[in-house]
Amino acid sequence: MATRWGICSAGKISHDFMVAMKTLPPEDHQAVAVAARRLDDAKQFAKTHGIPRAYGTYEELAKDPNIDVIYIGTIPTTHLSSCLLFLNAKKPVLCEKSLAMTTKEVKEILACAKKNNVFLMEAIWSRFYPAYREIRKVVAQGEIGEVRLVRSEFGLSVLPLPKLELKELGGGALLYIGLYPLQFSMMIYGERPQSIQTMGKVLPTGVDETLVTNMKFSKDRLAVFTSSTGLKLANDALVVGTKGSIRIPSHMWCPETIVVNGEERNFPLPKPDLPLNFVHSTGLRYEAEEVRQCLLKGLYKPLRLRHPRKNPHMGKENSHPVGNENSHTCQPS
Amino acid sequence: MATRWGICSAGKISHDFMVAMKTLPPEDHQAVAVAARRLDDAKQFAKTHGIPRAYGTYEELAKDPNIDVIYIGTIPTTHLSSCLLFLNAKKPVLCEKSLAMTTKEVKEILACAKKNNVFLMEAIWSRFYPAYREIRKVVAQGEIGEVRLVRSEFGLSVLPLPKLELKELGGGALLYIGLYPLQFSMMIYGERPQSIQTMGKVLPTGVDETLVTNMKFSKDRLAVFTSSTGLKLANDALVVGTKGSIRIPSHMWCPETIVVNGEERNFPLPKPDLPLNFVHSTGLRYEAEEVRQCLLKGLYKPLRLRHPRKNPHMGKENSHPVGNENSHTCQPS
Repeated sequence: MATRWGICSAGKISHDFMVAMKTLPPEDHQAVAVAARRLDDAKQFAKTHGIPRAYGTYEELAKDPNIDVIYIGTIPTTHLSSCLLFLNAKKPVLCEKSLAMTTKEVKEILACAKKNNVFLMEAIWSRFYPAYREIRKVVAQGEIGEVRLVRSEFGLSVLPLPKLELKELGGGALLYIGLYPLQFSMMIYGERPQSIQTMGKVLPTGVDETLVTNMKFSKDRLAVFTSSTGLKLANDALVVGTKGSIRIPSHMWCPETIVVNGEERNFPLPKPDLPLNFVHSTGLRYEAEEVRQCLLKGLYKPLRLRHPRKNPHMGKENSHPVGNENSHTCQPS
Repeated sequence: MATRWGICSAGKISHDFMVAMKTLPPEDHQAVAVAARRLDDAKQFAKTHGIPRAYGTYEELAKDPNIDVIYIGTIPTTHLSSCLLFLNAKKPVLCEKSLAMTTKEVKEILACAKKNNVFLMEAIWSRFYPAYREIRKVVAQGEIGEVRLVRSEFGLSVLPLPKLELKELGGGALLYIGLYPLQFSMMIYGERPQSIQTMGKVLPTGVDETLVTNMKFSKDRLAVFTSSTGLKLANDALVVGTKGSIRIPSHMWCPETIVVNGEERNFPLPKPDLPLNFVHSTGLRYEAEEVRQCLLKGLYKPLRLRHPRKNPHMGKENSHPVGNENSHTCQPS
């Protein structure tokens, strides 16, 4: 039976998500409704992507009983209200990154998911890429020895652009793209950093434009990352172990190729049937399929990130240097 | 008339320096004497490289009146005593990096050179590479716009190796190889950093094995570098400007190729006539020739690094984002 998706917002990333979904079997994934703040936008989006129902409010989408999961593709400043709306309506949620604007907001969203016992996942799509699965495997199997350093970067020259320059629109390099190298480092080490140093350039609006960050994990293991909305960077990553290295050429957040100890390993993406707004967006298919698998398996409790040791289900994952692809979002109930 | 070199130490880097010198015209450069702590080593070295005189003490080399300049190829812990010996004997000095073990030692050496009015240069050979001259030209001419970020790294997996693990032998990643990305960042910005953040792994001996460092220069311009004696890194560098970038593929400290806005520019090195101990060492020829040119021009006053504005000769150089190749070492008297 197909997973029935409700799409919240008719914006650029929602478009790409739909194009990606159509690279998956229709018997597994179907978009059944879309909502936008303007009904006309929703109708146009529905027409473009062959979606049966279109709504002019998110509330109508939340009340639609024939939906299995909501994809939230709005800007981060609206994620708190949207997540609470859908979670309180007992709708599982895949919410675009970043999940929210502050730790306080994230906690409120997580508490809401827990209270309602509903699946919630932040759409860190990179984690579900075949290339990322391979990276975790290579690290876990010791092909490059013990990992000691992670270097990664993600920078685009996209200013001026109000949504990246203004606090009230959720601006800032870290929240917009810096989270990719950050999550990459944390994925590799399977833990939070013990200490962080950062410096950068702050725009007159008070929002970060460029940042360089050092992190130390347990056992003196290091990570360094750079991110910018003002500068185009090489956008590669390097994982250095005691016996070798993994190089991820651009684009480190959605790679088709990785280089393990000098040897290329390729994971080509399917071609889109419509033009995309963002690079390699057909790779959104992997997170969509992951959500389907999580729902089929009944994995719906939010991960207790802050106190993993108090959670008996975390033992096995914590014993690995790299968590499995679910470990940052959900776990067996 | 040839510049007559005296070689202090018959070690590995002195060997490479001689091989490099032989790629230059013999009418410009001649090694006329070598000294080692053991006379037999000096004699063997002299035989290998066709050097007329061999000494078993550095003092004899210092007293040799038929020498224009000394190349010091000993380990850094001995640089202070060797530099003072030769400078006090009024011998110009090209001293291997790092110039000394502490700021205090560096100041003592600089004061000695000044007192004796004798040329002194730290052998940061990278600065004189044709590729480095091209990098400075590209930056100065604005081919990549205003430089905003420099990322560079130099890491080798060479432990265990006592001289890199023990304080008393001058160990540590920063002093051994980390200075290359550090000097690279400072060359690009033509100034000292205004703030520095660093973290890393320290060996039980108290010596740095791996470090990750952020630096902020004027106008919020950033640099980040990584160095390690325990990990082999990609050893490339990236200079990011507002209009483009320069990529320096491995080896960033002695490149034959740079990539400016996607276009390769090549600067091939001459081939050595004997096996080398270190990568691309025939490139030591460029610093040897620079020393010759400095001596021919009578450039011998040590640069007053700490108070450049008090020095009337520094005005022009300071007005450029990148100093010329002499600016870190010497200046017109």
